[in-house]
Amino acid sequence: MKYLLGLDLGGTKVSAAVLDGENKIISRARAKTRAWRDDEKVFQTIVSTGRRAIERAGIEAAQIEAVGIGSPGPLDPRAGLVIESSNLGFRNFPLGPRLAEEFRRPATIDNDVNAGMWGEFKMGAARGASNALGLFWGTGIGGGLIVNGTLYHGSSKNAGEIGHMIVQADGPRCGCGRRGCLEAMASRSAMTRDLRKALRRGKKTSIAKLIEGKSESVPSNALRRAYQAKDELAVKTVDRAARYIGYGLGSLVNVLGPQVVVLGGGMIEAFGQSLIDRIDKVARKTAFEFAIKDVVMVKAALGDDAGMIGAALLARESLGGRKR
Amino acid sequence: MKYLLGLDLGGTKVSAAVLDGENKIISRARAKTRAWRDDEKVFQTIVSTGRRAIERAGIEAAQIEAVGIGSPGPLDPRAGLVIESSNLGFRNFPLGPRLAEEFRRPATIDNDVNAGMWGEFKMGAARGASNALGLFWGTGIGGGLIVNGTLYHGSSKNAGEIGHMIVQADGPRCGCGRRGCLEAMASRSAMTRDLRKALRRGKKTSIAKLIEGKSESVPSNALRRAYQAKDELAVKTVDRAARYIGYGLGSLVNVLGPQVVVLGGGMIEAFGQSLIDRIDKVARKTAFEFAIKDVVMVKAALGDDAGMIGAALLARESLGGRKR
Repeated sequence: MKYLLGLDLGGTKVSAAVLDGENKIISRARAKTRAWRDDEKVFQTIVSTGRRAIERAGIEAAQIEAVGIGSPGPLDPRAGLVIESSNLGFRNFPLGPRLAEEFRRPATIDNDVNAGMWGEFKMGAARGASNALGLFWGTGIGGGLIVNGTLYHGSSKNAGEIGHMIVQADGPRCGCGRRGCLEAMASRSAMTRDLRKALRRGKKTSIAKLIEGKSESVPSNALRRAYQAKDELAVKTVDRAARYIGYGLGSLVNVLGPQVVVLGGGMIEAFGQSLIDRIDKVARKTAFEFAIKDVVMVKAALGDDAGMIGAALLARESLGGRKR
Repeated sequence: MKYLLGLDLGGTKVSAAVLDGENKIISRARAKTRAWRDDEKVFQTIVSTGRRAIERAGIEAAQIEAVGIGSPGPLDPRAGLVIESSNLGFRNFPLGPRLAEEFRRPATIDNDVNAGMWGEFKMGAARGASNALGLFWGTGIGGGLIVNGTLYHGSSKNAGEIGHMIVQADGPRCGCGRRGCLEAMASRSAMTRDLRKALRRGKKTSIAKLIEGKSESVPSNALRRAYQAKDELAVKTVDRAARYIGYGLGSLVNVLGPQVVVLGGGMIEAFGQSLIDRIDKVARKTAFEFAIKDVVMVKAALGDDAGMIGAALLARESLGGRKR
């Protein structure tokens, strides 16, 4: 049996899974990234997490056919380089070649969101679609594009940055430095910024304690609880963000004409279908009827596993020399 | 020698050209569309314009290998249907099959902007690019996408509507009924609306006569003359529109990662390179450096011929059964 090792590298954690010949996860491992350490130490954590998953699968490292990893970018998937990353210290780090060396197997790297979208396309919510668009809504807003049945990288090798389309020209400052990006209007960081501003203006909310004096964004689940308890400020903030997500998706449907739109990430996991319905409604008013009438908007099916599964399957794909 | 007939159907005129085996235009014809007439009469004008181009080429109709036409959409390129058109009366009009019947040759239809972009890709400014994006700036704002070397239609069959991305949420009303689309911020109609509003507020401009009491948009050349004469209002209006075009293109570069961006349409024809430079500057600030650093932004090379040439080449393409 030919196994795959799939890795998902994030700013806070590294996850690993071994997939069997039927693409089923047979073991897992996880560690904290501790991204503030130097490259080499973060890399050693990735490797040891991968080895742990292999051990737990009860197989030999030699039975792994290929290694795949999803990483924050931008990166050069062909050269296996992480060019830079705002969450990690990596700068032109040869993550692919280094993993290939450690595991003595071909290693494939791709953007973390792309890997997740590829997982959803091969085994999750976008199965069978020729053209699909994934939007992952959390602290930031990430995107992945399936075009004519393949993962689309574009000439920049880093296409799919849908969080950085301008939807509100001259709007609030984005983490990327520009103004009015979708991410600056609707991400969890943007919502936290808006909530903070409202608090300073004297508005009340049940989640004030999660906002005041903290630097991180309000957790999705806290937002969901406040929303369900009809906390006025939370409802207004989330609904407004959802409206912007709808604008962004409607715009992208006009440009890309996808068959399926996959929605995932912390916010969608926490809120579920009702939030998708809200977004769907706005997107349908935003896009042309001829462009959106046959579009299916669905929840990501693989949750946190999407990245590991997608990375592993991208690795298998590139073994076959197939275009992706 | 195998000839092609290429047609370009617009709201105001129908253009036809015969291309020889080397894709050179050897004859042309043109007529007014008079789009207010019924479908059948508009169709007869298309046919007679095509026949005139064939006559002028000094060839027999039987020497035409295939017929291609670019038409305003949305349409169904596979079935050859014009689903509807805001400029023409067509509604589910079988333009492809009807042309095939008249000329007794295979006929291909595509969106007018797509046809133009295909022309630029095969013989113009986007030659050799794997991924390219065309923006055509006139009364409206149209777009065409080349993805992995083929014309991209998406699952909606009508992808590429880049004029209807929202860049200013809750902004001014667009011709499409939504608010804040790129077209509502930057098209010639949008600029005319802004100029009218400024006049009503008592601002002065040298082109006041072209605006007051008229229903059509200010011609691009009039805008250019006023701009060059440093007419304050004209300069402000055009610069603002160019800024929005830059925002839209920067956003699309982040999403699509093209290699080449082709700029065409009346505004670009009138203003030339200086306006492209202005747009380019904004787009480069809007997009991520890793996404835009290798992007070339160029003026469309085929001008008004792009649509006819592209339509003819799409027709030849589909003869070969090749994917487009």
